[in-house]
Parts: sequence; structure tokens; C-alpha cells
Amino acid sequence: MIRVGIMGGSGYTGLELLRILTEHPEVEIRWVSSESYQGKTIEQYCPAWRGRKNRVFCSTAQAIQNGGVDLVFLALPHGSSMQFASQFLTQGVRVIDLGADFRLKNVSLYQKYYEIEHQALTWLTEAAYGIPEIYREEIRKARLVANPGCYPTSVLIPLYPLIREKVLEPTLVVDSKSGVTGAGKKPTENSHFGEVDENFKAYKVGNHRHLPEIKEQLKNLYQEEVSLIFTPHLLPLKRGILSTIYLNLKQELAEEELIAIWKKYYQNERWVRIYPLGSLPETKWVVGSNFCDLGLVKVDSKKVVIVSCIDNLTKGASGQAVQNMNLMFGLGEETALPSQVLYP
Amino acid sequence: MIRVGIMGGSGYTGLELLRILTEHPEVEIRWVSSESYQGKTIEQYCPAWRGRKNRVFCSTAQAIQNGGVDLVFLALPHGSSMQFASQFLTQGVRVIDLGADFRLKNVSLYQKYYEIEHQALTWLTEAAYGIPEIYREEIRKARLVANPGCYPTSVLIPLYPLIREKVLEPTLVVDSKSGVTGAGKKPTENSHFGEVDENFKAYKVGNHRHLPEIKEQLKNLYQEEVSLIFTPHLLPLKRGILSTIYLNLKQELAEEELIAIWKKYYQNERWVRIYPLGSLPETKWVVGSNFCDLGLVKVDSKKVVIVSCIDNLTKGASGQAVQNMNLMFGLGEETALPSQVLYP
Amino acid sequence: MIRVGIMGGSGYTGLELLRILTEHPEVEIRWVSSESYQGKTIEQYCPAWRGRKNRVFCSTAQAIQNGGVDLVFLALPHGSSMQFASQFLTQGVRVIDLGADFRLKNVSLYQKYYEIEHQALTWLTEAAYGIPEIYREEIRKARLVANPGCYPTSVLIPLYPLIREKVLEPTLVVDSKSGVTGAGKKPTENSHFGEVDENFKAYKVGNHRHLPEIKEQLKNLYQEEVSLIFTPHLLPLKRGILSTIYLNLKQELAEEELIAIWKKYYQNERWVRIYPLGSLPETKWVVGSNFCDLGLVKVDSKKVVIVSCIDNLTKGASGQAVQNMNLMFGLGEETALPSQVLYP
Amino acid sequence: MIRVGIMGGSGYTGLELLRILTEHPEVEIRWVSSESYQGKTIEQYCPAWRGRKNRVFCSTAQAIQNGGVDLVFLALPHGSSMQFASQFLTQGVRVIDLGADFRLKNVSLYQKYYEIEHQALTWLTEAAYGIPEIYREEIRKARLVANPGCYPTSVLIPLYPLIREKVLEPTLVVDSKSGVTGAGKKPTENSHFGEVDENFKAYKVGNHRHLPEIKEQLKNLYQEEVSLIFTPHLLPLKRGILSTIYLNLKQELAEEELIAIWKKYYQNERWVRIYPLGSLPETKWVVGSNFCDLGLVKVDSKKVVIVSCIDNLTKGASGQAVQNMNLMFGLGEETALPSQVLYP
Repeated sequence: MIRVGIMGGSGYTGLELLRILTEHPEVEIRWVSSESYQGKTIEQYCPAWRGRKNRVFCSTAQAIQNGGVDLVFLALPHGSSMQFASQFLTQGVRVIDLGADFRLKNVSLYQKYYEIEHQALTWLTEAAYGIPEIYREEIRKARLVANPGCYPTSVLIPLYPLIREKVLEPTLVVDSKSGVTGAGKKPTENSHFGEVDENFKAYKVGNHRHLPEIKEQLKNLYQEEVSLIFTPHLLPLKRGILSTIYLNLKQELAEEELIAIWKKYYQNERWVRIYPLGSLPETKWVVGSNFCDLGLVKVDSKKVVIVSCIDNLTKGASGQAVQNMNLMFGLGEETALPSQVLYP
Repeated sequence: MIRVGIMGGSGYTGLELLRILTEHPEVEIRWVSSESYQGKTIEQYCPAWRGRKNRVFCSTAQAIQNGGVDLVFLALPHGSSMQFASQFLTQGVRVIDLGADFRLKNVSLYQKYYEIEHQALTWLTEAAYGIPEIYREEIRKARLVANPGCYPTSVLIPLYPLIREKVLEPTLVVDSKSGVTGAGKKPTENSHFGEVDENFKAYKVGNHRHLPEIKEQLKNLYQEEVSLIFTPHLLPLKRGILSTIYLNLKQELAEEELIAIWKKYYQNERWVRIYPLGSLPETKWVVGSNFCDLGLVKVDSKKVVIVSCIDNLTKGASGQAVQNMNLMFGLGEETALPSQVLYP
Repeated sequence: MIRVGIMGGSGYTGLELLRILTEHPEVEIRWVSSESYQGKTIEQYCPAWRGRKNRVFCSTAQAIQNGGVDLVFLALPHGSSMQFASQFLTQGVRVIDLGADFRLKNVSLYQKYYEIEHQALTWLTEAAYGIPEIYREEIRKARLVANPGCYPTSVLIPLYPLIREKVLEPTLVVDSKSGVTGAGKKPTENSHFGEVDENFKAYKVGNHRHLPEIKEQLKNLYQEEVSLIFTPHLLPLKRGILSTIYLNLKQELAEEELIAIWKKYYQNERWVRIYPLGSLPETKWVVGSNFCDLGLVKVDSKKVVIVSCIDNLTKGASGQAVQNMNLMFGLGEETALPSQVLYP
Repeated sequence: MIRVGIMGGSGYTGLELLRILTEHPEVEIRWVSSESYQGKTIEQYCPAWRGRKNRVFCSTAQAIQNGGVDLVFLALPHGSSMQFASQFLTQGVRVIDLGADFRLKNVSLYQKYYEIEHQALTWLTEAAYGIPEIYREEIRKARLVANPGCYPTSVLIPLYPLIREKVLEPTLVVDSKSGVTGAGKKPTENSHFGEVDENFKAYKVGNHRHLPEIKEQLKNLYQEEVSLIFTPHLLPLKRGILSTIYLNLKQELAEEELIAIWKKYYQNERWVRIYPLGSLPETKWVVGSNFCDLGLVKVDSKKVVIVSCIDNLTKGASGQAVQNMNLMFGLGEETALPSQVLYP
């Protein structure tokens, strides 16, 4: 049994971790912390949990004191993970950070976009970027995994095989749309029902925090600088990201050839589903599951439109985190991850 | 021209007042205050207003200093209206309070439900309860109008004629459902998209603040104590209240007779629409307008179900406030009020 | 292994059956029929199923010819189940009908409300009404189970213990609200997005088909005629029913005593969750699961408001059907039923 | 007074025409036809109209027989407008066609995309393309106006000034998102609540019918072939289109310079609103109004992202149609058009 602790269990990603880990046959959850709800049971806080395994939130201090775990999931605001990660790692506890603190190798970009000084630089260097479909080997051996942002996951999985096969120009446009739970559980104007319902908007065009993350990853894959435009939008729904990605091919390739490249890399990936020609993913086909769905259409001899879909809380956050854990501890990578979609 | 001021112009009811009053041919808006957005223009705050009449929010202090108005609308949190109302009234300025401070004549109930001491008791006695269809004469002469709660409006308009004609037992069940804008513009857990979207709940069963308001009004109309159960619910939509009201008839009456009673009172009421037998109101048929729509079905020889619909921000708040203003200043009662419904 | 067939697998209840049965360790699905989609695979029809167990829809004729099953689930329009049920039952195959054909023992009411002649009267007499929490023994032995309507399930589970303990007057008001999936997968004006979104309405007041069903069941439980008003409403959301039930107590009882009655009957029921005083169910706490959540508030010395919630497709249809199957075949009643709620 | 007839008055664009024209001081609506609802009053069909000007739908045959109009609006399915347009035009009645029959000058493209033979080629040649901000002079003199598609309107208005000033490369990506009312009032799987709610999808990528329309218009403006990728998506909301447009500048220009170009063309356009730098349009700021809102962000030295918003039923259909009418009949172009936004 893997003994795990969860820091920040009362947010949306924390609750999603609990949803998944509770069903995990090889995991024992030792403690779940929540500064805001310490002392409360999970079912008091979230009645969805009535009649299921109950548990009391502990404080951060208790979490650290408790220790006794092999792995800690950090589901904390950016800036908070750094210190706790260092603390646990130093004690030999492995860490999966669902926040942003270890995603960007380029510290100055981190500091620019997150407006905070990085205080765990050694660990940053060591951190594996947690997309198993791309960095499986690194993750397997990692002590610290930086769980990727939801948008980057939806962008990098479809692009990785095509970049590796060198069929893409390094010039691309990514038009992404996310459900509101991506903004977390804390009430703000951006998540206020009266402002979000029946509305659609672009936001942070040209300066979203996931832009440097996607760019750094693409640069790694392309092995050259990339011209990327990334526009996130907010959908009036709870779960789901759909990214529409506009690409230029280096040489003309048929749709079938592009699909074949995806299949070459992802044929045996449990959590990537490639759509047959003529059909495209929709968010409703992934909601609640760990799938990343991919489809494409050629719209010109050398222009391709890719559509990818994930559930931002599952493959975009907590599902992928558990997938990383499975990998780190030598378990079947699909263990306990939801393949069931709640449809309709 | 009626010179008006609006205190609390940046909330949802304040903005709805602006939407209506801006089209009013007999109104000059002299100032609009907002503590949070003073110094900002309305279009900066709410881009829906670009290209329309612009205006700068002033502070509360400036509002009072500005004066120079015949009427002030108070769109403030409960507890705040009392003092400002007194101040303006003393200067001879008439007041329509969209908050709760002057709705309950029974001070001890006010203090119990709003947990605050009442500090304008003289004015409280004088305040007219602002449903024109019921208290037209009082409102016409009033210096101070207490604009009713949204739920009470949806309940009292359908009941008034039936109570006056003494056909109802004083025992009733009111099951009301409201859109989320009723909770205002301030982000809270109760208006957080992730909590409200795709959800439905009852809340404050047996102790909602509109319960004593409805009860006091019913007692006035019945001239006896009333047994009322009132259950508010929260709908995952923005605008609209639907109340389902369960009534017992004193003697058997046909549906046609009940409709006839409504018509006797409301035939010439511009803002009450009586549905023909076999059809019932839906919220979408009133959204954006000042209408209160009424329909009924008999379900047993002496049992009737009434369905009423209003837009909680219009007839349930700002529309009714302007209707009261029209009445107080001798204008056509329908002036400037929206009869247009945004459908679909 | 129980060998099952599903007739009508492409509708919303059919797909929900598949969602649940696919995870069932004791079930082998032999065939799934769909007149409209025969020859198609489930994943072609519903991409949520990609990468999971695939299967081809067969025609009705093939379904019957295939046979080879111990149990058939009928997820068909009312009127269609009668003949197929008879056919299978005669061959010794047990049947759970998710439609309405065997719910009403009173044939004349069936014929009045469903406007169709009943053609399987012998089987009608034998059919067990499929709420395990109430009719466990009958279901265990049944060859034919009439799976209840979604609204009746949400009403009868909370009332059963209170009626059995004779604390209720036989006069009640039920104000129910359902999500749109209750209307099925076939596009109609009542399920058209432009008509349903941002709207709320009551419908079929006094003549909904679930009215005689609830009434017949209540009469059985009360052992006397019941005065019931039942008003269904349509919520702008996909899954979930919330029923607000207004009751009169025969004698004064404390909230704690009422809760104690529920606990006496449901303490060990896996799928009934009783909320502690001061809290009430919301649809979001049950969506995706087989739970029926119950809460209550006393609003007067002898008046009680009950709030119950179910997922209309799970406990209100396919989940309960599988629960009935488990019972009929001597399996653990909770086997394979979803306890997980997709929140947020 | 302009005497107008409306053919196809019961669809969403027909009802939106009625909403606007009923308030028009210079218009007398002589008849409104609806094949499906002939003989019914508008308020029977759509209770939003109770208590407002009522009117009976006539049949198509009666509409033609009635005649007696100066202008006919055709709000019919594509393919139906051709014949009626010819008929009315021959009688000297001017026509605004809200359908697609006269939008594409290239007949073979029409026939390819709409799969129907064009039967009014002479009139096609004469038809003006009805975006007043671009083709004001042509529309003023036109007997026949082809009212543009909703997507093309949202794309061409922002691009026109920039193309005219020759600052854009002829290579662009348009990622558009539309509310569900764009699909009309007829229930289909694509507008079924259970399929659309909480879902987001791209559709008809590379072969949407508005693609050749946008392309033909862009070619006219650029005076050269254009490389256009156009991806429409379906939003889970009722009204609103947001287009995100990705452009390449021929030479480096500052954001201020681009805004200045817009202002040069649109300074005095009542229905175009240019957002100040740092802010972008959202659909909620235009819903219910005839505005087309524009904003932009530079994301690289020569790369620009434009965001435009319209209400698909107003500026995207019926509002623009009335704007065209105003122009054709020498009225103030803003007459009767809604500038009010229903917010929240």
C-alpha cells in the first residue's frame, strides 16, 4: 500500500483527488489537510461524501507533523507548494505538486508570470514534468513531479507525436476554452453565476500563465524557438477543456498519415483516444474521465485543425496526478483512474 | 422632469434601475452613487453601457452633498437604508427603498429576522408598501415607499383579489423558485458557478426573511392570522421567479370563477397578465419585463394551484420601484417600464 | 453470471443501464437492442464509450431471436413493453420494465392516463413494484418488476416510514422539480435548448402520469384514500429530481422523532441517506449516484417540509433497476451501483 | 409609414424581427406569415407577447395574396426564399432576405454548399450584401438585400477597415463560437438540451456554409485570394457569437494604430463599439442589442488577436435586417434598433 497525504483537500482538485484515490486499491490515504475546514469531516463539508468513507480534515501543521507517508499531493495555491515540497522531499517523501511552482524550468519566467520569488531552485531542476504520455521515464524515477496545467495538457498531448515526427512548422495558434471549475472553489467575480452564466469571453490574451509553460514545453520538443499564440476562453459550464489548434505542416500529408503518427505513439496509451476521420471530440465525451480525446481535420493542403478535449479536473489535474503516482510506484498506470463518462 | 438620485447604483438592482430610468422621458438622473466604484464611469464598470448615456459613479458622501433631487432610490444592503432615508426625507426628498428596512411594520420581527436595531421608527410607520396593484392610493401620497421583496411580490399579487373576495381559507403553501441574481452581485459560495450550475436546492426553509413579510401582508389582507408555509429554492438561471401556490377554497368555485375574480381586479392593470385556462406562466415569458403573469389549475373540488411568474430584478425590484415612482409623481403608471421580453 | 439483454439501449435510460451493468462483476450483457441504431457500435453512437467495452446494437427482432438470457431490461416507450414482457416471461426469462406498463395495478387508470389498452393483464397482476426499500420481499421473488417512475421514487421513499408509523394525515402536497433528461433523448420542443435553458415552468399540473402512480402507492401504504396534489416542474439542468413535500402530522412530533422514524427503517439501507437536522439535500450531492437523500424541517407544530433528492436516471430509473436485479438474483443489493457523485 | 410583411414569423429570427419592428415608429406590419402556426395569434404561440400588440399569423398563400406592402422580410429556410423574392420583386416590392439564397455571388459555390439549384440568378446579381457598415451605398439603392450570415457579420465588420488600409496579410484564422439559437427553433439533436447543456464542440470544421460566404467577401475586400481557416463551435448558451480572429500584419503597427484605423471607419457608426486597449468584448455586453463590439490585442510584433461579439439574432440577423431597411427607406439608421443590453 502506498501511504499518501493530501495537502489542500477542500478545493476542487483536492476533492477530485479524493474521488479517485478513495477507489484506489493500492492507496491508503493517511491524512487530508485543509486550512479552512480543519476539524470538519469531508461529508459535513461536501455531502456528496455521505455514506462513503468519511474522514476529518486536519490542519497544515498536523499534516506535516503526521508525516508517515510515502507520497504527498500538494493541491495548494502557487507559491505555497515550494516550501512544503522541499520539506517533504528532504524527509524522503515523494511529492506531486498540482500547483505551478515546479512547472517552469525557466525561473525568470516563473517570477515574471507568478510575481513571486522561487525558493526551491534545486528541486525545480529535478522536477519531472508530469505528462506520462510524453515523459514516462522521467516520471517513473522522479521524486518530485510537477503536475502540468490543464491547458498545457490539452495542447501538448496532441502535438507531441507530430513534433517528434518533425511534420510541423514551429508556428501555431491555440484557441482554448475551459469550464469554470478551472478557476477553483473560491468565489470571485470571474466565477460568479450572474457574470458567467450565458456568457462567453476570452481572457488574459497574450499573458496567461499557461503560455510560458506551453512555450517552454514546445521548445523542448521542437528543439527550437516556437511562435505560439495562445488564447484562453471561459465557457459557461463546469468541467471540460476543448482546445482548437491551428497548425502548418512542413510538407503535405494526408489526414490518414497524421492519424497514423498519433497511433504510432498512442496506440497503447490507455488515456488517449484518437477519433476516426470525420468525427471530433466534444467535452461531454470526456467529463468525469481521465481521457484525452483527439481529432483532426485538414483544411488546406498544409493546414490542419486539431481538436482535443479533457476534463480539466481529471486528466487536466487530479486524474493525471494519480496517473503519475501509479507510474512512480510501479503500478498499472490506469489503476483507479475513471474511464467512465457521466453522459448525459 | 423628476430629478432623481440613485444610491447603490453598481449592484444588480441599481443597474436595472439605470436600464429603466435612462429610457424614462420624465426623469433626469442627477447622480448615481457607488461606494465601490466611485470615480469610475458606468461603461468602464459595465461595458453593456458603452455607446449609451455615460455617467460617473459618485461616492455616498457626494450623493448626499449633491442633493438637488426630488426622489432618491436606495438600492443598498439592509440596515444602510434607514439612516439615508431619514436624512433625505427630512430634507423633503421622497424616497423609494429597494431594501428591507421599511417593509415590516412589526419592528420586533424586523429585528429578529434582520438582526439589527431599527433606527427610523417614525418613518417606518409612514412607509407605504409598494405594490401598486394593491396599495395604489397609499403609494400615490407616500413620501416613503418600501419596495417589496421579490418573493412577496410574486405571492401577493395573485392572492390579493382572492383574499379580498373571501374565497380562500387562511391556510396556504407557497413553493417559490428564484434565479441567482436575486442574491446580488457580490460573489459568495451561494452564487459561485461551480456550486449553482446544474444544481437545485431549497434554502432557509421556515426562516427566510421574506416569510414574515408575506405573512404580515397576508394578515392585513385576510384580517386574521394566516397559516403560511413558504419554501424558497434556488434555480440555476439568472432572472426569474416562479411561485407555485397551493390554496384551499372556502366553497367550491369553478376555475372560470376564480379567473373572473382576478379579472375583476386586474382587468386594467398593465403589468398583470392572466393566462387563459389550460395554460400557465413560465419564467421565460416575463424575463426583462415588468409583467407579473398569473395562471391557475383546480386540482380538486376545493383545491387550487396558482403559478405566478415575475422577473425578480424588474417587477420583483427595480421595475416595480419605477412603477411606484410613476404613481407618486402622477405619471402614467406604465411609463418607461419594459414590456418587452427577451425571448428566446 | 447473470446473462442479461437490454431492449432499447440507445435512449438515456438504456445508456445509463450500460454505464452501470458494464461494471457489474456478476453480469454478462448478451445483447443490447436499438431499433434506430441497429448495426452501429455503441462507441460510434456515443463516443463516451470509446476505449471501453464496445458492442453492436442489434435489432428488436434479433434481440428476441438471440434470447439466451436470464433477465431482460426493457427501456422502451410505454405501450411497447407489454408484448415483449409477455413474450420473455412466457419463455421463463425474468423481466424488469423501466417503462410504465406494469406500474399501475388499476387498469382503468392506466388506460386513462396512457391512452392505450392494456394487453398483459395477467402479468400486470403479478408485477412487483420495484422500490427495494419498500417492497424488498416481493421483488426478491418476482419474475416481473415494474421499475417505478422517477418522481414516485423521490416521493415514496421519504414517505413510506412515516406512513407506516401512522404519523401522517392523508393530505399532502408534493412539489417536484426534474432535470430535462427525464424527458428522454428524442428532441422535442420541451427539450429544445432555446426553450428550456434559463427557463423554469410547471407542467401537467393535476394530470401528470406519475400522479395516479404515486396515489395508488400511497393508498396501499396508508390503507385509505389520500388527498394528493402533485406538481411537476422542469429544471434547466440535465440530471436530478428534488421533491419538496408538505405534510401534516397527526400529532405533534419533534424533528428528532421524525428523523428517528426514518432511521428505524433506513438505518441499514445503502442507498438512502438521511441528512442531519439543519441541512437539506441538493441535487448536486446525488448526481451520478444511486442515492436517495432525505432531509426535513418542521415549520409549524404539526407541519413538516421534506426535501428529497435523486438522480432521475440512476435511483430514478436504471440504478434502481439494477438494484432490483441484484435483489432478484440474490446478489448484494449494492453491487455495481454508483456511490460516486460527480462533484463539482 | 413603411408597410412591411414578414414571411416566416414564427421562427427565432421572425420573432426577433417582430420584437424590433413593433417598436418602429415608421413601420406598419401588414402581415406575418407562418405555415406551421397560421390562424394562431402570436400571443397564443409565444406568451411573451401577451398584453402587447397582438396579431394573427397568416398562411404563405394569404401573405402573397395580401400583398399591399412596400417591403417583405423573408425569414425562411434556404431554398424557399428564391421564389418568393422573385415574386415580390417583380411586383415592385422590395425584399430583405434573412436566408442564404442571395448571399453568395458565386452560384456554383451556392449550389455546392446548399445542395440546391439557384433559380433566381438575375436577382442574385442585383442583390446587395447587407452589412451597412461596409456596403452602405449599395444597400441604400437596393431592391433586394441579402442579409448576411451571423458568423460573417462578426468577422467582416472587424476586418473591413484593416483590409481597406492594407495592413493585413491575406492569411487568417477565425475561431468562432455561437449560442444555440443560431440553429433555429426546430428541435434537433444539435439543439437538444441533454446534448448541448454542459457541452462544447467544434462542428463542420472546414465545410460550414458560412465559410464560402466569408471567403467571397474577404476576396472582394482584399482584391486577392485569401487563405482562411474558419472553425465554428457551439456554446451552451442561447444568444451571442464571439469570434477570435488571428491576423498577420504586413508591417509592424502599434495597438493604438490599429485602434485608430477602426476609429477612422467606425467613429460615427452607431452599432460598432471599439473597446479601449486592455479590455475585450464578452457576449453578455451585447445580448439583446444591435451592437457589434470590437477589441484587440497584439501578441507579437506582427500578430494580432481580434475579439468581436454580436447577438446572433440581432446584429447577426434581424437587427441588421431592420438596419438595412432603415437605410433603404431613408430613415435614421439607428431607428428602433435595440441599444439596451439585458444584463445581468
